[in-house]
Amino acid sequence: MQAEVINTGSELLLGLVQNKHLAYLAGELAPLGITISRQVCVPDGPPVREALRDALGRAEIVITTGGLGPTSDDITRDAAAGLLGLPMEMDKSILEAIRERFARRGLPMADNVGRQAEVPRGAQVLPNHHGTAPGLYFAASTLGSHRARHLFLLPGPPRELHPMVADHLLPVLRLALPGSAAQERRIYRLTGIGESQVEARIGQSIEARGDLEVGYCARPSEVDFRLIGPRTALDAVEPAIQAELGEWIYSRGDTLEKSVIDLLRNQHLTVAVAESCTGGNLAGRLTDVPGASEVFLAGYVTYANLAKEQTLGVPADLLAVHGAVSEPVAVAMAEGARRAAGSTFALSTTGIAGPGGGSETKPVGTVFVGLAAEGHPTTVRRCWFPVDRPTFKYMTTSAALDLLRRQILGFPLELGGGAALPRLG
Amino acid sequence: MQAEVINTGSELLLGLVQNKHLAYLAGELAPLGITISRQVCVPDGPPVREALRDALGRAEIVITTGGLGPTSDDITRDAAAGLLGLPMEMDKSILEAIRERFARRGLPMADNVGRQAEVPRGAQVLPNHHGTAPGLYFAASTLGSHRARHLFLLPGPPRELHPMVADHLLPVLRLALPGSAAQERRIYRLTGIGESQVEARIGQSIEARGDLEVGYCARPSEVDFRLIGPRTALDAVEPAIQAELGEWIYSRGDTLEKSVIDLLRNQHLTVAVAESCTGGNLAGRLTDVPGASEVFLAGYVTYANLAKEQTLGVPADLLAVHGAVSEPVAVAMAEGARRAAGSTFALSTTGIAGPGGGSETKPVGTVFVGLAAEGHPTTVRRCWFPVDRPTFKYMTTSAALDLLRRQILGFPLELGGGAALPRLG
Repeated sequence: MQAEVINTGSELLLGLVQNKHLAYLAGELAPLGITISRQVCVPDGPPVREALRDALGRAEIVITTGGLGPTSDDITRDAAAGLLGLPMEMDKSILEAIRERFARRGLPMADNVGRQAEVPRGAQVLPNHHGTAPGLYFAASTLGSHRARHLFLLPGPPRELHPMVADHLLPVLRLALPGSAAQERRIYRLTGIGESQVEARIGQSIEARGDLEVGYCARPSEVDFRLIGPRTALDAVEPAIQAELGEWIYSRGDTLEKSVIDLLRNQHLTVAVAESCTGGNLAGRLTDVPGASEVFLAGYVTYANLAKEQTLGVPADLLAVHGAVSEPVAVAMAEGARRAAGSTFALSTTGIAGPGGGSETKPVGTVFVGLAAEGHPTTVRRCWFPVDRPTFKYMTTSAALDLLRRQILGFPLELGGGAALPRLG
Repeated sequence: MQAEVINTGSELLLGLVQNKHLAYLAGELAPLGITISRQVCVPDGPPVREALRDALGRAEIVITTGGLGPTSDDITRDAAAGLLGLPMEMDKSILEAIRERFARRGLPMADNVGRQAEVPRGAQVLPNHHGTAPGLYFAASTLGSHRARHLFLLPGPPRELHPMVADHLLPVLRLALPGSAAQERRIYRLTGIGESQVEARIGQSIEARGDLEVGYCARPSEVDFRLIGPRTALDAVEPAIQAELGEWIYSRGDTLEKSVIDLLRNQHLTVAVAESCTGGNLAGRLTDVPGASEVFLAGYVTYANLAKEQTLGVPADLLAVHGAVSEPVAVAMAEGARRAAGSTFALSTTGIAGPGGGSETKPVGTVFVGLAAEGHPTTVRRCWFPVDRPTFKYMTTSAALDLLRRQILGFPLELGGGAALPRLG
């Protein structure tokens, strides 16, 4: 089943606000087997009516966002009523709710606010607990000869839109499309392996079954492997997926850092980090996870050599002989951080983020990632990420997190098997 | 003048990738006086042709992104050629460039890659230095009776798209729209002040001149104040802007962290940071700036109390009496970091990012930001950012960077004057 999305709002077309509605709605609708066949963004005003007419003639489901407010350029409600030939009626309960909302905040209510209480006859009101403008749902009975069977007019601000989708749009569609309840989406998130290898190892054979939709999304250091279909089919391929891809799968939706923090928390283990080239981003990713404070003890951003010596006890002669970007220094940093923090594990990063600082033997993008672990020899991975600076930092922190994940789970620390180090794509 | 944007790509409609093209293109086109009147996202395949036909009939400028690759679903080039009645011709220089690109990487070249070297007759090739698929430009002479006077087919990946817009699309349009060359865009980036205050202090009076377009964009901790118009008018209002907003303006386009790093580099000053609640993100923002290594000496992510004591020398009784989230601990952390790193300045952060950990007197979102400076008393700002965890970290690091910026430039460290601490919006 196909849906079209109409976003209204001059702020979107002016580029003042990123339009995140499409990605959000696509993710929510996919498990119901609904794909978005077209999305259009038009300014508040007359083009809304034209876009609405076109969409109602093409798709089974039409969803608009924005244009439900009280000002003169908010015309989505009127445009829909006009197209569908439905007269407007004042809904006293909405008007009362809006009055209360203003009274509670001690604010005066402008006359035009009352417009939001007007409802096209036959439309179902979707309450808005996070703003004044309610949403509207038009069932097939109000849509006449248009191709569309479901029309939703929803508010634009995400904090109003998202609860309305969860509380009203999805339940309505689940009821209306009973078959869709049987469709599920499963996403495997992988690191340390390329998209083409995922396809070769397992994707092609799953595709050949014919009952599952297979998709890939590659980002720096990461691949999302996505299946949509009936739960029985998803369960049937699960063992083969684990057998072929198990060691590279870090989660079914969580970020890599969340997966690592969860592993540490579940096993009551702790970690510290010593960073040079990643400059705090590794600590930053770990501490972005709520609850990180239980397992993350300390981070040392030892950018200057003196800081490496004083804070982590990296020997000055090691730095002099091998250079700061070297395997021995990565080892000494990781071990020094573990000692200083008294943690189970410590990760280290030292590399050349660029744009300057490269050499013949260590070109820009070269990085050493170290892991010191209680009771184990310290491991170092040498990687080469010849990419822009932010991507370099991201890929390096991903390599470090993956090293720790593999250590905790007992997977090989060498990626081996021809699997590239995490690379772009 | 109006432009329509057509984004192709199933990954956008599937919600796997956020569509950032609209906001990016809107920002680039605005200074030329071009607004985007409609944006549509269609799947790779036949709908591209229909969307292209509609847009060519409506707008003066049409820009497509995506669908220029070698695979069977990349049909934008063919769709345009078909609609315009232009035969395809093989461009040998493109083919040679693609061959070289593959050879340089030692990769075999699949047969279908050659498709990217096919060019509709009369179209101008826009070289792609960051990917294999070149862009195409169709001038009015190839557009027949369509309303459009300019058609650009551009690649989808941002790292290919952005250079092509800067190097080819903008120069072509500047030449074609001579009036637009006289328009300039000036952006002032501010922190520590709200959008409505910017408007009240200076925005309204500039608007009243009538020759400058005024815009605001508020993000957490930041406001962009944007003027578009002739350079003479922009220069005329500059002194008033500096008088009214000077201390809050941190740059004319650079990030706050870049501005701070530049100030430090220019004056040969150094900085260290001691972070608790921001968990490495402050060091991360500073070291995201190329050249940060000249001035950033060390970061200490002292999440655990023991790390605060051992690494920074925060007295245990201070932690016991006042708690880790307190003004005295923020002072001790900043001074301890400055001592440990031997830097001119040190910043500290300690707060409650949430979701847990709040109390009656220190609710979630409370944070203390400290600045130790050689030869000055240590300063602490208490802030309250009751927002989600990533935004909390961002606003806290912004408050810290702003404190350092104000110290270096000699602006008041208390924001005063009714200016709110950096808040959402």
